[in-house]
Parts: sequence; C-alpha cells; structure tokens
Amino acid sequence: MELAKRRGFIWPTSECYGAVAGFIDYGPLGAMMKRRVENIWRDFYIVQEGYYEIECPNIAQEAVFIASGHVKGFSDKMCQCPHCREYLRADHVAEAGNIRNASVMNNDELSQAITSCICPACEEILGNVEVFNFNLMFSTTIGPGSQRVGYLRPETAQGMFVDFPRLLRFYRDKLPFGAVQIGKSYRNEISPRQGMIRLREFTQAEAEVFVHPALKNHHPSFPRYKEYRMPLLTWVQQERCEDPVEMSMQEAVDRGIIANEYVAYYVALTHELLVTIGIKPERLRFRQHLPDERAHYATDCWDAEVFSPRFGWVETVGIVDRTDYDLRAHAAQSGTPMTIFIQYDEPKRTKRRRIIPNMSVLGKQYRTKAKAILAALETAIPTSDGADIRIGEENIHIPASLFEIRDEVIEVRGEDITPHVIEPSYGIDRMCYAVLEQAYDEDIADGEKRTIMRLSPNVAPVQVAVFPLMSRDGLDIIAGDITHAFHRKGILAEYDDSGAIGRRYRRQDEIGTPFAVTVDYDTKDTNSVTLRDRDTMSQARIPVAELTDTVGALVAGRIKFASLLK
Amino acid sequence: MELAKRRGFIWPTSECYGAVAGFIDYGPLGAMMKRRVENIWRDFYIVQEGYYEIECPNIAQEAVFIASGHVKGFSDKMCQCPHCREYLRADHVAEAGNIRNASVMNNDELSQAITSCICPACEEILGNVEVFNFNLMFSTTIGPGSQRVGYLRPETAQGMFVDFPRLLRFYRDKLPFGAVQIGKSYRNEISPRQGMIRLREFTQAEAEVFVHPALKNHHPSFPRYKEYRMPLLTWVQQERCEDPVEMSMQEAVDRGIIANEYVAYYVALTHELLVTIGIKPERLRFRQHLPDERAHYATDCWDAEVFSPRFGWVETVGIVDRTDYDLRAHAAQSGTPMTIFIQYDEPKRTKRRRIIPNMSVLGKQYRTKAKAILAALETAIPTSDGADIRIGEENIHIPASLFEIRDEVIEVRGEDITPHVIEPSYGIDRMCYAVLEQAYDEDIADGEKRTIMRLSPNVAPVQVAVFPLMSRDGLDIIAGDITHAFHRKGILAEYDDSGAIGRRYRRQDEIGTPFAVTVDYDTKDTNSVTLRDRDTMSQARIPVAELTDTVGALVAGRIKFASLLK
Repeated sequence: MELAKRRGFIWPTSECYGAVAGFIDYGPLGAMMKRRVENIWRDFYIVQEGYYEIECPNIAQEAVFIASGHVKGFSDKMCQCPHCREYLRADHVAEAGNIRNASVMNNDELSQAITSCICPACEEILGNVEVFNFNLMFSTTIGPGSQRVGYLRPETAQGMFVDFPRLLRFYRDKLPFGAVQIGKSYRNEISPRQGMIRLREFTQAEAEVFVHPALKNHHPSFPRYKEYRMPLLTWVQQERCEDPVEMSMQEAVDRGIIANEYVAYYVALTHELLVTIGIKPERLRFRQHLPDERAHYATDCWDAEVFSPRFGWVETVGIVDRTDYDLRAHAAQSGTPMTIFIQYDEPKRTKRRRIIPNMSVLGKQYRTKAKAILAALETAIPTSDGADIRIGEENIHIPASLFEIRDEVIEVRGEDITPHVIEPSYGIDRMCYAVLEQAYDEDIADGEKRTIMRLSPNVAPVQVAVFPLMSRDGLDIIAGDITHAFHRKGILAEYDDSGAIGRRYRRQDEIGTPFAVTVDYDTKDTNSVTLRDRDTMSQARIPVAELTDTVGALVAGRIKFASLLK
Repeated sequence: MELAKRRGFIWPTSECYGAVAGFIDYGPLGAMMKRRVENIWRDFYIVQEGYYEIECPNIAQEAVFIASGHVKGFSDKMCQCPHCREYLRADHVAEAGNIRNASVMNNDELSQAITSCICPACEEILGNVEVFNFNLMFSTTIGPGSQRVGYLRPETAQGMFVDFPRLLRFYRDKLPFGAVQIGKSYRNEISPRQGMIRLREFTQAEAEVFVHPALKNHHPSFPRYKEYRMPLLTWVQQERCEDPVEMSMQEAVDRGIIANEYVAYYVALTHELLVTIGIKPERLRFRQHLPDERAHYATDCWDAEVFSPRFGWVETVGIVDRTDYDLRAHAAQSGTPMTIFIQYDEPKRTKRRRIIPNMSVLGKQYRTKAKAILAALETAIPTSDGADIRIGEENIHIPASLFEIRDEVIEVRGEDITPHVIEPSYGIDRMCYAVLEQAYDEDIADGEKRTIMRLSPNVAPVQVAVFPLMSRDGLDIIAGDITHAFHRKGILAEYDDSGAIGRRYRRQDEIGTPFAVTVDYDTKDTNSVTLRDRDTMSQARIPVAELTDTVGALVAGRIKFASLLK
C-alpha cells in the first residue's frame, strides 16, 4: 500500500483534511488500471454475452428501497462503547470474543453475550451496552423543504429491476435477456477499518439476467463452460470441514451441487474473468453460501473468494439466483406488472367448470342482491348440494336447483410469468486490490533489490515505456515519434528521458509497465529498437515499423514475449 | 424524446413509482452512446493532451466544501408560493415577470420585486413571499451517530484541487500538468423542469490544468490551434447587442479578447471536440461571461453554447481561468502547502536589510520580554529613529541605539508559487442531449415517411446491423458469423432476422445505426455482401473478407462511404 500511494495507484481521500475511513481516491495509475479492469468486464458481459449496459442514478427515491426491503432490513447490529464512545459492530465484537453464532442472535441476545467482550478501540471491557440496528443506507432529501427522502443506492441492481418493463420492450418481449451496470454503490459502514476491502463508496459491476423459471437449466451458451473445471467448496463440505473438490460445471449441475446451468455458467465465467485480469487460480475459490447464510429470497449463492495474506479469504464476486423475489416485490409495491406473457407453442386446451345461474328465478328470489350473487357465483365451487357464497358479511346458500353446472373446454394461448433473475455481482475495488496485492513482488536485478508489480499486461496502467538512451543527437526525437505512434494506436506509452537507463527501468518495474523500448545509437542505422520484457528482463531487437503491432499483440496477449527471442 | 424513450436512449427514472424530476436513466442505447461520447472526450484529454484521469468519491467531507465556498455560497434564491405551496426559484419567477437585474438583487429586493409576479405552478399572483437561500448541495451523514456531515460533490473539480500535493509529486514537481475526471456531480435544484438540461444528478468531465501564473501565454501545444477560427461572442459585443465575430485563436489572444493562450487553446479544443461528436458548427457559439456574471475568482470565462429549438442557447461547456483561488483556499483551510518550488535558471542575488540587536543591552532592559522582542525585530521595518514593534497588546518603541542595521546580499535559488488553474468543464448529459436533438430527422424513403437519427458514426450506439435476407438456407449462419467477426474487432453489430428487410432498415434508421449489411443468396457464390449507408441509402458490394476493416474505417471516419461506390 505504501507503493500504491507513492506511485499514484490509491490515495487516501481528501488527505489534507484527514482522510475519511471507507473512502479512497484512485490516483492516475489506479484509475487507469480500474478502467482496464472494467473494460475487460465489459468484454465478457457486453461483447461476449451480448447484454446491454444501462445507467441509473446513484440517488433513488424511498419507494424503491421500501420494495427491495432495504429500508426495513439493510442494517447492521451496532453498539457504542460506554468508555470511549466509539461505535462498534456488535457481531464483530462478539466474533473477536470467540462467541459462537453471533450472526444469528437477536439484539437482546447479542447485548447479553458481549458484556465481557473488549472494545477494539479502547480495550476496556464493554459491560452493559445496548445493541440496536443501524441502517446502512446513506440518506438525503431531494428538493427543498425536505419533501422527499432519497437514498444513495446500496447496490446497482434495483435500478435494473425497476426498469424491467422498459427492458422487456427493448428486448422485444423475449427471454432470456440481461442488463448490466457498472457504477457506484454506497453502504454507510459503522467503522470500516480494512482499506480498499470495506468501502463506504465502492464500484459494482452487476449483471441481472432475466430467465424463464422453467428454463434455468437451459443456458443457451452452456456448452462454452460445461467442461470448465474448478475447485468448489460446497456448503456440505464446509459443514464437514472438508477441502474444495474440483469438478466440471456439467458435473456440478448434474450432481445438484450448483442449482442450475445459469448459476454454473456465471461461476465459470467469473473464474475465467478473474484469471484474465491476473488473479492466480491457486488463490481463488468458489464457496457456496450455507443455507442460513443465504438471503431469504436466494435459492443458491456462490462467492468467488480471493486469498489475501493480509485479510484472508475475501468475498469478491457473488453469483446468486434471486428467483422472482425482486420483480414480485416491485410489482406489489408499485402496482406495475412485472411479468412477461409467454405464448405456448400451441394453445393448450383446458377444462373449466362454469356455473350458469337460472336468472329468472334468482332475480325474483333475491331481488336487490341478485347482481352481487351472480358475480359471486362465477368463482364459487359448486357441489351437488348447491353453492356457498359470501356477500359482504352474509353467508348465503344457493340451492343446486337455481343453477346448472357446465364443464367447458377452453383454449389458453399462453400465460403471464414473472421471470427469475440470476445475478453475478462484482466488487471492482476488491478486484483491483487483489490484482495489486498479487502483483507486488521483489527480486534481484543487476545485483540490486528491485520492486516490481507483476501486473498482467492487459490491466497495467502504462503499457509500454519509451526511453531515448540519451536525450540528444536526435534520439529524443525518434523516441518522441514512437511514443506518438503508440498513442495513435490506443496504446498508453510513457516517454522518459531523465536519469540513468537502469533507474528508468526500475521506475517502470515499480508501476508494472510490462514492456520498455530503448532508442539507442544503432536505431538510426538499423531502424530497430530494443524491447525489454519486465518479468524476465530479456530483450529483443524489433524493427521500428513493426513496433506498435508487436507491442499491441503482446499487451492483448495474442503473442508471448518468448516468441520474439531468436 | 418520445423516440428516445421508446427505443431505449433515455428513460424516466424509477418510472413505476412516479419519476423524480431531475433524474434520468440512460437506457441500453443511451448508455452506449454516452460511453462513446466519454471515450471521445478521453481521446482528446488523455491521449492527445497526456493528462491522467483520477477518480475521487462522490461523497466528500464538509471541510472540502467549506474551503471551496460551497457551504456558504452555493445556493439559489428560493420562495414558496403561498397558494399552492410549490417551491420556486425567485430569480426565475422574476425573469418570467420581466423584472430586470433579478440576478443581482439581494433577498429583500427580490422579495419586493416579485409581489405582482405569477406562480408558474398555480398561476396565482404571488403577493408577499419571503425569499431565502437554499443550498444546492445534497447533504448526508457519514458513519453512525450523525457524527460527520458529508456532501455529494457539486463538481468533480474539488477532488483534483485537494489532491494537488499528490498530483504534483506524481508529475515529478514540474508544471504544467493536468488531471481529469469523469464522474457524477449533484445539485439539489429547486424545481427542475427541463429534462436532460437541468439534472440533479449529472455527469461532468472536467480537466484541471495547473500552470505557472507567469506562463499562461505559453501553452506548449498552442501552435496546434493558433490558426483555428470560430465565431466568438465577447462580453463587449453582448453589451452592444452585436453578432459574434469570427477570428483565429492567435488573433483572439493578441487582441486581448481571450485572456491567455491556455484559455484560447481549450476554447478551440472544445470546438473541435463538439464538432467531432456531431454538433453542427452553425448551432455552436462561444460566449464570454459578462464581468458581473463571472465567478469572483475567475479572470476569464467562456461558455460553449449549443442551440436547441426547445431550450434556446444551452450552456454545455465552460472554460474558465480559476487563477490560484482554489489552491489558496484549500491551503488556508487545511494548513497543507499547495505550492510548487520553482527554481530559477540561476540563483538571484537580492538585497535584504537585517536588524542585528544589541543582545546584552536588550536582555537587561526588557528581561522576560526580550525573547519576544528579538523575534518581532526580525520582521520589523527600522527607521533612523528606531523600530516600532508590537508584543501582544503592547506597542513598544525600540530606540535605534539598541540595534544595528545591516544590508546583506543573499542568493535566492527559487520561489514557492501557487499555480493557476485553467478548467475546461463539460456537461456530458447536455452534450448527449444536443447530439440526440440534432440527429433527429424525418425524410421520405421508398415513398414512406422515415424517422432517422443522423448520429455521427463515432457516437452511434449500434455501429452496424447485420441482416440475413432470409432466416434460412444458411444465410442466417453466414450473418451470425459476420456478427461475431464484428464483435471480435470491437465493433458493436446487431443481428436482426425478423420482419421484411425494409422494416429492419427502418428500425436501425430510427436508432441511428450508420451502416447495415445484408447477406443475400449471391453471398454464397460471390463471398460478398451489400453494405448500405443510412443517410444516403446508397449501397455498395463489399467482399466478406474486407468487411470488418471497411466498417471499422467508416466508423472511425478514416474513409467516406462515397469512396466505396464505383
């Protein structure tokens, strides 16, 4: 983190006023790297999957979060240390005090349980403290006069659920389809102490895939990943304290370990995506939520966890089958249908039992009530004895003689169904943290210790460095032209002519620049330059005319540096 | 806007709960278009100018906005209609009532002035209403216990000012340098009624260019734009009700019309950028702020205004010389230096008058005060008579006999200066609105009315449509392969096989897709397809092998469609 701060990856936010916990700035290199990570995510979800991105506001009105359950239920259990007045997460205090099952205790139980625990801030014994719920949404008011409560969204997902009717029309009323969103989300954490791992303002990349509930085992592209193998840590294994088992996605679905093809598909895609940005497979595992850990609406949930020497296994991506919970909740709260009419391949013939009342008798006998009785009979369940109906507060028995029962066969063209939602949800900041942490390395170069960020070329902020051996004799001009040629091809090149060449290499190694070009005196005669590989420090001589294409191919991973060595 | 809603460019936000004024959703096509506009902006500011992007949080602590002046001064004058209780902007009410100089009135004057004005909501005469200030920042609290006030940033700029010390180190202590940011900003408008033009949550793209105050007439790349000509509407012309005058940037700087090369450079760059995304030059003007319209810290300010038939001239970009106001304000508020040490080419010899006190006498005479007097003498201005100093509340005269005056010559290596900031600030949503509004067109195609979005190919969301003439005989498979080939090249292609070919063209015309490929029965024999140009509806036959390169070149604007016609 010292390196990340010094070289411009991650900075404390508004540092000159005393940084605020839970917020960070991405410096010039960090923001560039983050953008590359986001664009790789888009390659997977927008280009490969064909889902469109939408962009909803960060602030949303209260009704959205009443429906989603966040207003009522999105809270942590909090207490305040009576000695130092620090606010604490009661469940974290309990866990630190080795109290079991803290996560399932209610406020009173937790309050009882932590009396002998120690305040992590002042290290006094807590004693009697009240435990209460603290809602994690940041609230604000929209417009003057505090007329309207608004919240900063705690997840990007809700915007896509609320837009379902519009999305459905955009996708011409056909399932499955997906919408994705990359944007800020906000959680007003009680006392975040883990840097980039627990942020109050963070970037999510979420996809909401709307599917027919009966077709969750028919992802159209499942063959792409059915043979994809990875270690899975199921909830059963966790309860038995067993190690993850490696298997293919097909096997996981067939054995009922992963709930359906859709979830398995995004588990595999997530594994591929994380490895693509430079996460080492051996530091990556997929852990299934325990039944009591799952959100109440979820039928299956898998977390991609990345191992950090500093923080342990860190949840970085969640893949969850949210069922029809969200769409039903918004339909109920708003009164807007959130369904799709699915036409059957051919109309279904279905039997219906209808009551045909004897109008003339009924009218005479019941007079003013006759109309209400007619309506009630339409949905009544008749027996041979007659039908019992209810008009207002009154139970009325209609004898069988007053109606006729007719069994009809009708044609039904289709039905309204509420789609289910499969949601892969990525924490972009945690991905960036993992990439930085895993890239950090030290080795010996030219007899000196060298600090090196072994960033994957596709996420390295600066993609190639360009050095004139000397800043004179026209070498600087050639190097300047090469730098511009890279820029025209969309390759971020950094020109540097200050200091000894060794020092310039060190500076670039430290920020993870994968390749460096040196323009030397031979360049003028041979029209070629030296291209150096960061990791192996080996060098190849490349014609200037081929340089941008070669570096472009190296950065995109289409060729390996070793292939350039003769 | 009907088309924009129906086809998925812009949607009302959380529509099913009743949309909230001042917030919009970008639908699938709108979000894609917005991203293309942002990336063109990056091509100019990051690739061409070489400035790095950073990313600061949307929420920032109060101290930042105390220093910037937003807590105290970022407010609109508001009143409430006594009849319908609607909150109104008092200055807008006054302007609608043809009251002159409303913008420079204080609250009491404005209150007097609008008594006979009409409420725009209920159309009653207002009568006596109180006018008061309403701060436009959204506020929230960070952490539990309402400990800490936070605000949603009203501009992205402040994050870059606050990060100045870190940025300076990143750029190795050399001026000029720039930092840019694309992100959300928030203004809690009193009653926004202008759709995408006045949003409470909007996207800004801002560049802060830090320059040496003495070198504002030396932009290193000024030659790029010095001959660039455009119509300028100066403040003098506005006062005289004259038309804009066309001139080159060099001329504008030389004649003192634009304050300096830096401002002129970004005025020209902005013109080029807006034309690049498809704004028609004849609907674009650069208007200088009037002296009483400028922020108090600004020395010169130009707005790029785009003409809208619906809203008139709309401020879309502002280019302002913010001087050293912001850095000085943050330095004063935080106590952190926001300066750069500029070394002189060679040390300057400078005279200094020093007071050398006679220690022994002074010590005896003033005893306990002697130390304070010594310190005060260091900065005192002595006369032949002695020196007058102030210790606490006491004025003390030190006679000339108690010290000696020595004139010294010292070497000064350089000086600490506070850089000035030139800021081009872009409203991305307004740019998107202008692009959509100007692209909308209707014409006659094949004898029928056709609705067409004449979007510039570089911002069109879908870049090429791919149609199999029939969805059988293998044509659909060829068209599918072509679609994938486009995706692999990073070109967004949309496959469509439903309905008559004419209807498919219409659908794409309506969303501004610039090119369409048709796979027909000849394709199997000749390995070529028809490529159709949206605007001219002319068609060219292109070999499949050349298709992705050709369309890529058309989208990037490297070739014109006419060149494909033989």
